[in-house]
Amino acid sequence: MVTLHLAKIFNPKSVAIIGASDEEGTVGYALTKNFTELGFEGKVYPVNIRKTEILGLKAYQTVEQIPEPIDLAVIATPAKTVPDVVEQCGKIGIKGIIIISAGFKETGPEGKALEEKITEIKKQYGLRIIGPNCLGIIRPSLRLNATFMNKTPKSGNIAFISQSGALGSAILDWAVHENIGFSNFVSVGSMIDVDFGDLIDYFGTDPKTRSILMYIEGITDARKFMSAARHFARTKPIIVVKAGKFSESAKAAASHTGSLTGEDMIYDAAFKRAGIVRVDEIADLFNSAEVLGMQPLPRGPNLAIITNAGGPGVMATDALIAKGGKLAKLSQKTMQYLNSILPHYWSRDNPIDILGDAKADRFKTVVEACLNDENVDGVLIIYTPQAVAEPVEIAKSIVDLLKTRGYQNKTILTSFMGHEAAEEANRIFSQNSIPTYQAPEQAIKTYLYMYQYKRNLELIYETPEELPVDAAPPKHPIMAIMRNTTAKNRELLTEAEAKNLLEYYNFPVTKTLVAQTAEEAVAYASQIGYPVVLKILSPQIIHKTDAGGVILDLNSEA
Amino acid sequence: MVTLHLAKIFNPKSVAIIGASDEEGTVGYALTKNFTELGFEGKVYPVNIRKTEILGLKAYQTVEQIPEPIDLAVIATPAKTVPDVVEQCGKIGIKGIIIISAGFKETGPEGKALEEKITEIKKQYGLRIIGPNCLGIIRPSLRLNATFMNKTPKSGNIAFISQSGALGSAILDWAVHENIGFSNFVSVGSMIDVDFGDLIDYFGTDPKTRSILMYIEGITDARKFMSAARHFARTKPIIVVKAGKFSESAKAAASHTGSLTGEDMIYDAAFKRAGIVRVDEIADLFNSAEVLGMQPLPRGPNLAIITNAGGPGVMATDALIAKGGKLAKLSQKTMQYLNSILPHYWSRDNPIDILGDAKADRFKTVVEACLNDENVDGVLIIYTPQAVAEPVEIAKSIVDLLKTRGYQNKTILTSFMGHEAAEEANRIFSQNSIPTYQAPEQAIKTYLYMYQYKRNLELIYETPEELPVDAAPPKHPIMAIMRNTTAKNRELLTEAEAKNLLEYYNFPVTKTLVAQTAEEAVAYASQIGYPVVLKILSPQIIHKTDAGGVILDLNSEA
Repeated sequence: MVTLHLAKIFNPKSVAIIGASDEEGTVGYALTKNFTELGFEGKVYPVNIRKTEILGLKAYQTVEQIPEPIDLAVIATPAKTVPDVVEQCGKIGIKGIIIISAGFKETGPEGKALEEKITEIKKQYGLRIIGPNCLGIIRPSLRLNATFMNKTPKSGNIAFISQSGALGSAILDWAVHENIGFSNFVSVGSMIDVDFGDLIDYFGTDPKTRSILMYIEGITDARKFMSAARHFARTKPIIVVKAGKFSESAKAAASHTGSLTGEDMIYDAAFKRAGIVRVDEIADLFNSAEVLGMQPLPRGPNLAIITNAGGPGVMATDALIAKGGKLAKLSQKTMQYLNSILPHYWSRDNPIDILGDAKADRFKTVVEACLNDENVDGVLIIYTPQAVAEPVEIAKSIVDLLKTRGYQNKTILTSFMGHEAAEEANRIFSQNSIPTYQAPEQAIKTYLYMYQYKRNLELIYETPEELPVDAAPPKHPIMAIMRNTTAKNRELLTEAEAKNLLEYYNFPVTKTLVAQTAEEAVAYASQIGYPVVLKILSPQIIHKTDAGGVILDLNSEA
Repeated sequence: MVTLHLAKIFNPKSVAIIGASDEEGTVGYALTKNFTELGFEGKVYPVNIRKTEILGLKAYQTVEQIPEPIDLAVIATPAKTVPDVVEQCGKIGIKGIIIISAGFKETGPEGKALEEKITEIKKQYGLRIIGPNCLGIIRPSLRLNATFMNKTPKSGNIAFISQSGALGSAILDWAVHENIGFSNFVSVGSMIDVDFGDLIDYFGTDPKTRSILMYIEGITDARKFMSAARHFARTKPIIVVKAGKFSESAKAAASHTGSLTGEDMIYDAAFKRAGIVRVDEIADLFNSAEVLGMQPLPRGPNLAIITNAGGPGVMATDALIAKGGKLAKLSQKTMQYLNSILPHYWSRDNPIDILGDAKADRFKTVVEACLNDENVDGVLIIYTPQAVAEPVEIAKSIVDLLKTRGYQNKTILTSFMGHEAAEEANRIFSQNSIPTYQAPEQAIKTYLYMYQYKRNLELIYETPEELPVDAAPPKHPIMAIMRNTTAKNRELLTEAEAKNLLEYYNFPVTKTLVAQTAEEAVAYASQIGYPVVLKILSPQIIHKTDAGGVILDLNSEA
């Protein structure tokens, strides 16, 4: 059911634009124009109380007057009117809603009241709502741009979800310029309903989406988020920028000490456990997404760096080591081979400096040698403009090699430096799904993010499955222990209680019995068998050894 | 004298191109073409043993045949011929030489011998040589491009010195595309003569140069470098990327542990003491240089962030805190003022979120409030595309404000995000010397590099002057102490020796006398006056207290 309604939002056959307008410069105008101009194939119904036609489409005074069923209503009317509009939508059976309008809880108590009203109506009619206070959504493959932005990125395989509309639009603008393709763009706004977890679930099964990118400021339903992420991170990389490392609440402290707040560390750990890669900057988000869609995941941290100049090789090594990667130790066989084919003053080590006069054939031979070397997990190929400049031939020969030989399960990255000198070579790489970076440092950073993703995935696989129902621990005795503890206003279990609890979960524990008197203790001791340990049982004394309450290695009744 | 000869290289009236050629694709051709096509105003004499004319210029068989005096010889003949060519140059009184040819010590013992020969000739004739194995130099203001690269950047105020030719050419290619101007570009190559120290000295007094950027792999003459840098860093920012953080020698260890080698830490410390800013990446080099030429240095780490959207403000704060900066604590007066003029749901704190509907006047008013606030050292202004988009008006109003009000000694940075949305605004900022960045994180990084530069400068000023000669410590007694220590194969001074040494340098020390017997000790004690401390004197026992060899607070002979 949940997915069905999201499909109404993301794959609508008919859309009502409530607050449509033919007045240039308004949100309602920009929104309607995106529908009429992009070639969206579904039906579009502008709704405006004062109009009969908008941008060549028949307009309706209210959504209730539309004669046909509507999948998605996009609402851009003033905040005050929104609860009524949503209710009208609910009444006529519209299930998918995007509220672009702002002016809700972010503006104070009045707005908050409006928002609460919407939430009630939502429950009543079983609606799915994106927003409010959002940009809307874009699905380039459907020519669907339900935002007021005058930019539509090309179709691609990245789903991008942004909690900041402003940042989302800035990134979209940039992505259009960089020619990055999207399967989906969603600005989630205040998330009174549809949240990150829902969207991961939905895009996780969307065949057009190969990776999910998110800009997150805070997560509302952590359990749903984690469960969705853990489920899909195995098949689709999820990459996150989480802002607010230094939380508002600890802001003053953080700005003095620069220390991370606990909350952010929890995010860090949770992302890791869910298989999510957390990156530092927006640019990292796209660099990583591109590669994850193109290349085999790094098997390990050992990178071979092939370069036609010393300097960039050294810079790349600095970045690699600083960020926790390793220079691959070339096998003896590879070394012998390279010695036999390279000019005698090559670097004789990794980074493999194949010198300024290297042409396409030398690049190709050395890349192949690295593909053959078991010690190499990934290869970074650096080109700098030199007197003997044939970047295009070099790029072509590398593409040829990989087509013929395959990747041998290795990750290949390139950094062909300089602007004009490298432009055509970079185009060739992009067309052939070989990632390329302006600077070697970016390539290194991305390689290590990819490697981290791979390790996160391993971490997921290592996690044991949940216990089957019949092997689950008995509920009642455990509850009893807990109730007893809380009844006594304790926050810590006694040793006996804790061991008891662990035994119910089938953890092996040492045998422990609670004696009220010395005689009882002696009786229990012979029951367990010597040697025994005698401990004081007192919830007030947590560090029992320090208090002299533990006697080890007792072998007799004495 | 030194500077005079460098002027022959950097400001030549006449140039001989030795190894000039009219064969396309050769270094000699590219080099000659740069002289004929760019409009260099000095005289140019191609030298080629087999030609009488090259690219329309009369060619000479040898440099000796040129009828007029020559300031600079650019040599691009095969390595083997270079020593003879240099000698010819020396004989006819040419003092400035650039050796572009490669094939010297980097190729093995034969090449090394050639290089040594050149060094001898250099001494004999008092030559100044750049290279060998370099790209050459470029001075855009003179239309002088003495390299074989077919790119000439525009004239500007950055002097860029690169130890890697390949990286240098990549950066040049990129800089031309980014429209970055240079006063000088120098590829230093193997530095058999002219090195970083010489060039800092020269560019330090060059009126066209406002900042000096360097890509360094290793420094040959550290003392010269430090002295030059300390001298000029006060007036011209010197910014450095030093590659090889994890030195070749400690490579294996470094790749396992990721630890910095000692050598690199020495570079770090030395740069700091010389007032040099060390940055991580090439891009930082240019970002910093641009700002340092444009803006007042940050007075302190306290930044005000003005933004029309929450997200980027949070990302900027993350970057600021993570890198050691601080959010400026707005004064009560500023807070009251902002509360009175902003919509009531503004962020009510720094970052100052002035909301998505902010137009030019709101931006301007808030920037002005920050300029007025004594707690604010710098201001970062972030714009993201919003429904109400008037980036150009906003940019203009900020420029107006700063023209009218001045900077109030504060550093102003901008990040107008998105590509097309911000293009024109960014152009306006650039024209008015207000730095602008694609992402707020870059702005923050640059602000903090600038702040570091300022602190480095303070460090320079704090350093005491060298002692005047007549106040210098006596040389002989100090040498005697040292000789005595080394003669006994010790690496540590005894306490008495150390104190003795310190006294010679006028450090106040407690009175210490060495007693060989108990009687002597008693005698000395009364000489010094009670209370005294008795210590064991033994070079073998360094931690005397631990060994029981120290008795404090003795008040009598007993």
